[in-house]
Amino acid sequence: VRGQTLGDLGEERLIERLRRRLGPLVPPPPAGIGDDAARISRRGSHDWVWTADLLTEGVHFRRAWTEAHWLGRKALAVNLSDVAAMGAIPRSFLLTLALPPALELAWFDDFARGLRDTALAAGVSCVGGDTTASRSGIFVGITVMGEARHGLLRRDGARPGDGLWVSGPLGASAAGLRLLRAGWRLRRGSAVAPSVGRATRGREAAALRAHLDPRPPLALGPWLARSGISRAAIDLSDGLAADLPRLCLASGVGARVDLAAVPVHPAERRGVRAALQGGEDYALLFTVSKRKEEKLRYLAARIGERPQRIGEVLPPGAGIHGVAAGGASRPLAQGAFEHFPGRGSSR
Amino acid sequence: VRGQTLGDLGEERLIERLRRRLGPLVPPPPAGIGDDAARISRRGSHDWVWTADLLTEGVHFRRAWTEAHWLGRKALAVNLSDVAAMGAIPRSFLLTLALPPALELAWFDDFARGLRDTALAAGVSCVGGDTTASRSGIFVGITVMGEARHGLLRRDGARPGDGLWVSGPLGASAAGLRLLRAGWRLRRGSAVAPSVGRATRGREAAALRAHLDPRPPLALGPWLARSGISRAAIDLSDGLAADLPRLCLASGVGARVDLAAVPVHPAERRGVRAALQGGEDYALLFTVSKRKEEKLRYLAARIGERPQRIGEVLPPGAGIHGVAAGGASRPLAQGAFEHFPGRGSSR
Repeated sequence: VRGQTLGDLGEERLIERLRRRLGPLVPPPPAGIGDDAARISRRGSHDWVWTADLLTEGVHFRRAWTEAHWLGRKALAVNLSDVAAMGAIPRSFLLTLALPPALELAWFDDFARGLRDTALAAGVSCVGGDTTASRSGIFVGITVMGEARHGLLRRDGARPGDGLWVSGPLGASAAGLRLLRAGWRLRRGSAVAPSVGRATRGREAAALRAHLDPRPPLALGPWLARSGISRAAIDLSDGLAADLPRLCLASGVGARVDLAAVPVHPAERRGVRAALQGGEDYALLFTVSKRKEEKLRYLAARIGERPQRIGEVLPPGAGIHGVAAGGASRPLAQGAFEHFPGRGSSR
Repeated sequence: VRGQTLGDLGEERLIERLRRRLGPLVPPPPAGIGDDAARISRRGSHDWVWTADLLTEGVHFRRAWTEAHWLGRKALAVNLSDVAAMGAIPRSFLLTLALPPALELAWFDDFARGLRDTALAAGVSCVGGDTTASRSGIFVGITVMGEARHGLLRRDGARPGDGLWVSGPLGASAAGLRLLRAGWRLRRGSAVAPSVGRATRGREAAALRAHLDPRPPLALGPWLARSGISRAAIDLSDGLAADLPRLCLASGVGARVDLAAVPVHPAERRGVRAALQGGEDYALLFTVSKRKEEKLRYLAARIGERPQRIGEVLPPGAGIHGVAAGGASRPLAQGAFEHFPGRGSSR
């Protein structure tokens, strides 16, 4: 008889299982499994956090779809995003690579160039890691360390009455992924349609770029923590419909999303519900107490950010709902990307 | 035309290339690429270090050869070894897993049990990580963080005249790997020969165990740092013939190894030269100044360690030699495991 597999279980339950198995070893949040990054230590007014991610060829990227330097940039950027979503400033990273020996050096050099560009822009140093041969595909593991001098943005910091905010439009990355699947490619900044040949289309190019070369708002998280404007945040890696429930669960609260207020990227033509499902936006979702919302509006414009208020944190037990312009309310469906979609899941 | 590949280049030159590509970002050692672990920060009398490794199915392990809980133990142990070799005490770790959805849960649970056992024994906590689907095989990435209160053991700390010491016998793990390749298996603590059927053979079982379930001397590194007995160390992951030159290169010194003094594991029947080539021993190689060697001998026995003096650090330019009992001296051949054996290598 075939035993139960990871695919039978689903991702959330797999993580829960791991948490239980490693039980006595796992300290409570925010130092434990579940936040965007884990706290290392607190000394005086300083928090140090770290986070690790693994990008897998065929799952997170395809070589035919992306240029190597975009992959280098993205691999580091998504990890920097986890640290910034905690309100910390990324300082250094470790790089582990499993690479096929037949991989061309030109690809490797281009990948390293992308890494370097993002590292320079963010002011982080590569301080070590590991390289190993892979028999099947490219694996990029990155661990980032960050420093917070003014407290952390935690998943468990949301309070009923707080406003719910996002840093920018949603849905572009998922739209870009659909374009890639349909045969579109991004070449020298232009979107190339599958059959028509070379063609520049602004909206498609923006979607492809959002997916292949995301630029998370790295300054916003540390700024929110430093200014004391926010106490809770999460980066939108799996889609708001999946990440908002995580924030609510950790904080023990409900939430209402005003669907008409959600900024939807023009490349996401299927509307706001689709945009809430789309993964890899790397926008920041954060909460702001009522009395600080005016300050946020005033100050954000001055640092070049345009966050949008999309709803409100509700008391425990209120559920997590999307409310249409007409007032119709529906539970926010969870349907974002799962690595191990469980049989028991709602999809 | 086919471009140059990673296999054409070789592992050392690949790392050097990465170091150059990420050039301005890489701080000088010991915080930079090249040590067993990287320094995060120094505050007052405290050093924090971290290290990351990626274990790849088909390269570092095979599911048919190892039980899942051994793999869990080993994955963590070899990373703890890197931190301990810096003289630091491991405190916490991040776990990234890429797993095939068809993987059986029983395997996963057994793997998690192994991780937990080693974590509990070492007093480290799992504080986060990432799980993702893999289309081809299992990848285990672990990042470990450690704390040193009394200075670090650095690769660049060896001085001419220092004694060269190893923490235990060499060659067992490589012998175990050869046995696995020849069809031997370890079942419930006993070695099983390929054709003869079940048979308990102490020497073979010890070699298989050394390879599948290594137990690095995690207490020794921090003890050497705290006691001030040593200032330079490296863990023997790629074989002494490869790791000693790394220590010498970083310190700008030569070395003499007295072949008759090298402790060879009884499972390594091919002699001392073979034992120096064998990877994955996870013994500690360290240096001790002349005036502290008596103290080491006296104190080590009291903490249950039996390190052996195997040679001496020589002045710069003296080369790295193995000296036989009769006095014949030969350069120490480098022939340990390479992930990307370059065409230009000496093998």
